[in-house]
Amino acid sequence: MMKQAFHTLTVPSRGPGLYEFTDEARNFVRGEKIENGLLTCFVRHTSASLLIQENADPDVQKDLQDFFAWLAKSGPRLRHITEGPDDMPSHIRSALTQTSIGIPLHKGRLALGTWQGIFLFEHRDAPHRREVVMHLVG
Amino acid sequence: MMKQAFHTLTVPSRGPGLYEFTDEARNFVRGEKIENGLLTCFVRHTSASLLIQENADPDVQKDLQDFFAWLAKSGPRLRHITEGPDDMPSHIRSALTQTSIGIPLHKGRLALGTWQGIFLFEHRDAPHRREVVMHLVG
Amino acid sequence: MMKQAFHTLTVPSRGPGLYEFTDEARNFVRGEKIENGLLTCFVRHTSASLLIQENADPDVQKDLQDFFAWLAKSGPRLRHITEGPDDMPSHIRSALTQTSIGIPLHKGRLALGTWQGIFLFEHRDAPHRREVVMHLVG
Repeated sequence: MMKQAFHTLTVPSRGPGLYEFTDEARNFVRGEKIENGLLTCFVRHTSASLLIQENADPDVQKDLQDFFAWLAKSGPRLRHITEGPDDMPSHIRSALTQTSIGIPLHKGRLALGTWQGIFLFEHRDAPHRREVVMHLVG
Repeated sequence: MMKQAFHTLTVPSRGPGLYEFTDEARNFVRGEKIENGLLTCFVRHTSASLLIQENADPDVQKDLQDFFAWLAKSGPRLRHITEGPDDMPSHIRSALTQTSIGIPLHKGRLALGTWQGIFLFEHRDAPHRREVVMHLVG
Repeated sequence: MMKQAFHTLTVPSRGPGLYEFTDEARNFVRGEKIENGLLTCFVRHTSASLLIQENADPDVQKDLQDFFAWLAKSGPRLRHITEGPDDMPSHIRSALTQTSIGIPLHKGRLALGTWQGIFLFEHRDAPHRREVVMHLVG
């Protein structure tokens, strides 16, 4: 008999960059005692997104941050500037990455590769508390 | 006992930009009488894509359209020009955004944040009728 | 009664570009005798990703490869160069595309549009054997 589980994770951020929550996702899955299924992570914001990336060398995360900061500010002049100069570039960075990620769970283990970590990608300058909804079916 | 439901939504477009279908997704979910589960939206095209973005200030949508129009035409010379100058840039814009999005459904409500809307992102100049397949399991 | 199935596909690559595995995905689904459900494809790497794109004109795939090669090397100077000059650009290309894709399965057919194929997007220069985990629930 298949079942489902939900958990809302709060990820505190302190400026733009990647914040890993792989352990929190693993703990949620382990606690539900589901061995096989699908984990979906969904971020409830339009100026923060999700990314699965290398969690070994911290330089990868710095380079990703620098690349997206550069790209989002390289385009045509922006209209939506009500909340400051980091506002619209944050929406662009979100659109270029992902709002939801699905990860299979097989024999009690998430299908993540050896170097893969799950990250919240914060795009705003100010500190935020970001919500990631996790759904597990299996 | 878990069950499933399917619905194919047709989204008419009139040139490049974002077309919201959040209400249509909510109506589909409500009609199926499933309280908890996962909604997956999938676009059946390679020159239109899906995006979850801010639905408050329309300038956000204009800025996103301008940014992706600029980016997709800033690269090296394109070979695939059979269907006109907006053809290959449309594939690039699709590749940079998303073909499928998964949204958890909890206690009868989609996990969307306050400002999040679900959009079809049209990349072609001519009007189209785009198909979005919605799958609900719960 | 709903059930699940898993399959790990190995996709061999010979340099950067798109490698289609639509047939392998269809074969997996057909073999499981599930008529309605959701197929999730997940790539277990951070320097290769997934893309649904046009599978008709091979020029589309060449143009996508050239565009992402250009974009990933157009940004600020990169720190993470331990594994060679194609290393960090590969992570950037992965971040710009997708790690997981969900495709509804209805009446025995994947919801793919007429021209849509499922591709592994290889970003590294050297040949690799890439793992794609497929999960089916239905």
